[in-house]
Amino acid sequence: MALADIPIQAMDGGLTGNGRALLIEVADRLARFAAGGEAHVIDLSGLPLSEADRDWLRRELGEGEVHVRLAAAGESILHETAYSGVWWVEHRNEQGRRMSEFIEITRVPELLLAHPDDVILGSERLNHRIFELD
Amino acid sequence: MALADIPIQAMDGGLTGNGRALLIEVADRLARFAAGGEAHVIDLSGLPLSEADRDWLRRELGEGEVHVRLAAAGESILHETAYSGVWWVEHRNEQGRRMSEFIEITRVPELLLAHPDDVILGSERLNHRIFELD
Repeated sequence: MALADIPIQAMDGGLTGNGRALLIEVADRLARFAAGGEAHVIDLSGLPLSEADRDWLRRELGEGEVHVRLAAAGESILHETAYSGVWWVEHRNEQGRRMSEFIEITRVPELLLAHPDDVILGSERLNHRIFELD
Repeated sequence: MALADIPIQAMDGGLTGNGRALLIEVADRLARFAAGGEAHVIDLSGLPLSEADRDWLRRELGEGEVHVRLAAAGESILHETAYSGVWWVEHRNEQGRRMSEFIEITRVPELLLAHPDDVILGSERLNHRIFELD
């Protein structure tokens, strides 16, 4: 049975035990990644987590050295957890409401990488700007 | 003559013209990177920039969508400039004083990547933590 199939059944303090199951999955994915395996993304919104589970999981993973704010349409807030290679990624809409949330097991979330097409556009714009300055 | 060999000679408002020369170098490096060339790092502290040059350059490059704070010994502040693929990286000491500054032409600054050795350590620590929770 997959984690997504387990119904939410709250116990003490709203914890269902699913946060704990997910922590074990994160550890498993991180072990594989550390050994040279693939990066992996876990979509929290697709899982039967209570708000208490989510908070517990977030606390368990803790916060590391890197904090990122990405302002596009709405805002994305990312941080590396206390476990290097595990990132917590939260997307908010323009009203600041949390819309989706992911745990990423990777060296750096893809979202932070400049896209090659944007780099080409940036290069063209910068050349144009220098031409303007002359 | 390399840019580092040019002595600082301030003109209007403290601008020496070296900020402008550096902007052209950034554009050149970005064009090469956009075309599939190497990433590149420019160490601003090694260049004859006045504080006015530095401020002018920083304003010219502007700010993009990504802002990063990295707290280790002291703090590093990074942002993607308005030109995708060009990053401004500033390191401060524990008293908040700027110690060094770089412009990086790359998809993402190396500093943000989880180091493979740290990922292995993180994986071991997380397994240990799960064992503790049992």
